[in-house]
Amino acid sequence: MKRADLTGFALDLGGTKTAAARIENGTVIERVQTNTEGAFVVERHLDIMAELLEKVGHTKAEPLGVAVTGRVTQEGNWHSVNHGTLTQIDNAPLGNALKERFGSGYLCNDATAASVAEFHFGAGRQSENFAYITVSTGVGGGLIVNGRPIQSNNGLAGHIGFISTPLGNDLCGSGRNGTVESVAGGRAIAAAAAKAGHHEMDARAVFAVAAQGEGWAIEIIDRSANAIAILCSDLTAMLGLDNVALGGSIGLAAGYTQKVITHLALEPALFHVAICNAELDQNSPLIGALALHYMRGNK
Amino acid sequence: MKRADLTGFALDLGGTKTAAARIENGTVIERVQTNTEGAFVVERHLDIMAELLEKVGHTKAEPLGVAVTGRVTQEGNWHSVNHGTLTQIDNAPLGNALKERFGSGYLCNDATAASVAEFHFGAGRQSENFAYITVSTGVGGGLIVNGRPIQSNNGLAGHIGFISTPLGNDLCGSGRNGTVESVAGGRAIAAAAAKAGHHEMDARAVFAVAAQGEGWAIEIIDRSANAIAILCSDLTAMLGLDNVALGGSIGLAAGYTQKVITHLALEPALFHVAICNAELDQNSPLIGALALHYMRGNK
Repeated sequence: MKRADLTGFALDLGGTKTAAARIENGTVIERVQTNTEGAFVVERHLDIMAELLEKVGHTKAEPLGVAVTGRVTQEGNWHSVNHGTLTQIDNAPLGNALKERFGSGYLCNDATAASVAEFHFGAGRQSENFAYITVSTGVGGGLIVNGRPIQSNNGLAGHIGFISTPLGNDLCGSGRNGTVESVAGGRAIAAAAAKAGHHEMDARAVFAVAAQGEGWAIEIIDRSANAIAILCSDLTAMLGLDNVALGGSIGLAAGYTQKVITHLALEPALFHVAICNAELDQNSPLIGALALHYMRGNK
Repeated sequence: MKRADLTGFALDLGGTKTAAARIENGTVIERVQTNTEGAFVVERHLDIMAELLEKVGHTKAEPLGVAVTGRVTQEGNWHSVNHGTLTQIDNAPLGNALKERFGSGYLCNDATAASVAEFHFGAGRQSENFAYITVSTGVGGGLIVNGRPIQSNNGLAGHIGFISTPLGNDLCGSGRNGTVESVAGGRAIAAAAAKAGHHEMDARAVFAVAAQGEGWAIEIIDRSANAIAILCSDLTAMLGLDNVALGGSIGLAAGYTQKVITHLALEPALFHVAICNAELDQNSPLIGALALHYMRGNK
C-alpha cells in the first residue's frame, strides 16, 4: 500500500470531535470538524457527517473511509463501548446507512484506523507485528500481526485499554475493574489527583504541576507510564511485537515515552520492545480509514 | 485443511517427555516416547529424536512436523524460555539440523501446534478467533486470529502464561514477576501450598485434598481459576475471541473449567467468552505440527 495512492475522503467520529477530510495522494488537503454531540442518535450523526463531507467537496460514491470510536461489528453495526460518551449508539446499522447515503464507505474503529496508518506510513513502517497505543482521556489502540490489523466479528479486538493490570483497582468506562485505562488514561489521572486532594484538575493540569516538581503529581504520571510499560510487555509476550508507537495527548506529552521506556527496562530482556512516539498527527485515523477502504478491495 | 489428509510423522519434545508418532489419515497409529533430559545439548536431543523416529518407521524426507517447548524463531533457531527446564538450549539451529538429518521437518512451538490442532479438528472448529490455554506445570497456549496462528519472528508470540495478572506477586520461570503462570500453574499451586504450611505437595495432591473439602486447598485452586478467567477476558478484549479451550493436566482436572466459567461470569458481558475443554488428547501437538508442515507448503 503506497501512501501516494490514497485519494478520496474520510470521516473521523471521536468522543469529542467529528472531522471530515479530503485526501489527495495521501495528504489531507482540506479538513473540517465540529464537536461530537454524545446524545445524538445515529441518524443525526449521519446528518453531521453529510454536512462535513459536503464542505470538503465530497460527491456520491467517491472513495470514503469512516473511523468511529466504539465497536464496529463485521456486519457494520456500531456500538458505543463507553456508554457515557455516546449514549444512543447501541447496535446502530451505520455501515449500511453510509453506503445508502454516500454510495460507499468502509467503516472501522478509529484506533484501528490510526494503527493501520502508523503501520504503513509512520512509526510501524519497519514492523510486521506492531501495536499502536493511544493514551488520552481513555486508552485505546490497534494491533497489527503479520502485517494485518487484528479485527474481530464483534469489533472488540484491539481494545487494549480494557486489559487488566496489576496496578489497577478502579472501575473503568468499560464496566471492568482494574484495567489499564483505569490507571493510565487522562480520566484516571484526574481521578487520582482528586483522591490526593487536588480536585478540579484535569490530566493536563496534573502534567503541568508535575513539570514544576510536585511529588504527588509525578507519582500519578509515573504510575500511568508503568501501567503502559507492563501492557507493552504483555502484548509482546502474546504477539511477539517488533515495536510499539505511543500516541494521544498523554502518550505524546513531554517525557512520557521516556518514563515508559524506563519502566520497561526493569522487565526481563525477552519482554522488551522498542517504544517510540507515533509519527503521524491527528489525521492518522482519517488516513488509515481511507487506506482500509482501499485495502478491503473498494475503489 | 482436512484431518484425513494428514499422513506422515511428528515429534513432540516437551519439558518432561519426548514423543514420536506415525500418523495416518489424521490418526496417530503408533507412538513412542522417552523422558526428556533437560541437560542435553541440541545434538543429543537430535539423536533421541532419530531413535524415536526410527522406531515408528520414519525414512528420510517423509512429511515431518516437530513441536518443541520454548521459542522457535523464524529462522528455526530454538531457545528455551524456562532455563530451568532445558538448560543447554539457547539459539540452537534446530530447524536446519532437522532438515539435514531427516530430509524435512517443520519446526514450531508445542502449544502453537496444539492450538492449531484444536482449532482445525477440536474445540475451535467453529471459531475464527480462538485461544488454546494449557494449564499444567506452567501455563502456555496458542492464539488463532482470522484462522491463522499468531507467530512472531522471535518465537515469543503465544506465550500467554507470561502475561501479568492482577492476582500475581511471585517470580515466574520467565523472569517476569506476577505472571499468570506464577499464580495458575502447577508449580505455583505447589508453592502456594508450601507457603500455607503444606510442604512436599504437588498440584495433584492439592487438588486431591481440595476434593475432600480442605478450605486452604480450595482457595489456592480457586485463585488459579480466577487468574485464567481474567486472562480469558484480557485476551477477548484484545483479540475478540469466539471461544477458548482449556487443556493440560490442571485445565482438564475435574471441576476446574467450571470454576473458570464462574469467575468469568463476574466480568461485564462484553468480556465473556465461551470456555470449554480441549477435545484432542496428548497427541494434539503431534497432529498440529504435522498439520503446520502441510499448511506451510511442504509435502
